[in-house]
Amino acid sequence: ARVAPRPGLTLHPSDNRVELDRATHALQMAAEGRRVVVVSSGDPGVFAMASAVFEALEANPQYLALPVTVLPGITAMLAAAAAAGAPLGHDFCAINLSDNLKPFALIERRLRLAAEADFAMAFYNPRSKSRPHHFAQVLQILRESCGPARLITFARAVSTPDQQIRTTTLAEATEDMADMRTVVLVGNSATRRIGPHVYTPRFAQ
Amino acid sequence: ARVAPRPGLTLHPSDNRVELDRATHALQMAAEGRRVVVVSSGDPGVFAMASAVFEALEANPQYLALPVTVLPGITAMLAAAAAAGAPLGHDFCAINLSDNLKPFALIERRLRLAAEADFAMAFYNPRSKSRPHHFAQVLQILRESCGPARLITFARAVSTPDQQIRTTTLAEATEDMADMRTVVLVGNSATRRIGPHVYTPRFAQ
Repeated sequence: ARVAPRPGLTLHPSDNRVELDRATHALQMAAEGRRVVVVSSGDPGVFAMASAVFEALEANPQYLALPVTVLPGITAMLAAAAAAGAPLGHDFCAINLSDNLKPFALIERRLRLAAEADFAMAFYNPRSKSRPHHFAQVLQILRESCGPARLITFARAVSTPDQQIRTTTLAEATEDMADMRTVVLVGNSATRRIGPHVYTPRFAQ
Repeated sequence: ARVAPRPGLTLHPSDNRVELDRATHALQMAAEGRRVVVVSSGDPGVFAMASAVFEALEANPQYLALPVTVLPGITAMLAAAAAAGAPLGHDFCAINLSDNLKPFALIERRLRLAAEADFAMAFYNPRSKSRPHHFAQVLQILRESCGPARLITFARAVSTPDQQIRTTTLAEATEDMADMRTVVLVGNSATRRIGPHVYTPRFAQ
């Protein structure tokens, strides 16, 4: 529904979680001579459809000669950071918290190493119905690794009329502050509030 | 020169490395009642002007009531990644390699921890005339931490007519492959080539 219908355009909407099927279908149609666009919100290269298209290409090498172009976009963490101020103004990392894609032990390891590196952090897919308590564990790991005073921003439905930006400390953060439409940003040790804004300085010691 | 002149618009071009002066000047003009835009390429929140504006706001709290809005954009690593395929398709980090902004020891520490976390990595400001050999040290740290077979992509002048994308291994990479117009992307342990594309799978063990 995000792409308006028009003459000459055939829409093939599909559900979430069928990324590989969708990508393979797109390659099949392209091989038949159609011009195909795989549309996803944000930047397709950040936890979105671009990797799935290349995964489908790897599994179907008969399509390797097809010209594939990836168009960059504004990924959720950048829209969220801009709405909050500049919390990603210094070195940072992006972690997908879904354990559909990797074991929770790897997520925990990455969180602890990112904290040790003093990266600001952006989290995609913090919480879903199928793993409602997982994000509470993430918050506990962050409190242990970054301390209770570290700033955390919950950015919900960014760039829509429902947009909500809420910044608090890890001590005050609770798991219900995130849902599937939320991107979560955690500052580094220097991140601070300036009036209504949250920002991370460009310099570090 | 990137913003075309038009009636009613006053351009105040300024040099690189005077970010704080530029930001303070913008706040002064806004306080005088003008509508001011601070323009930078890419996303202003990623190693660009947004942090400098908040830094200026922090130093000049008399301007705190001014409405400041940050507009997100397509940051260099996302444009570079899209041109290469999807090398940032899994968890990744962004590190500014300039040691104008932090000590080299901190850069080294972050590189080693990012490798230990098995993040894909994007590097801004890999090399400049004032620190020509610094990037050779970075490559050496990466070879030690990630091994010689790890893929590295040099994306130069992305989205301009001079765009060049070159992917090789850390073993083959040399410091002269990067200059001030280059963004460097290093894959994680699973990043691979599929035909002309480089991609990082969505799943990890």
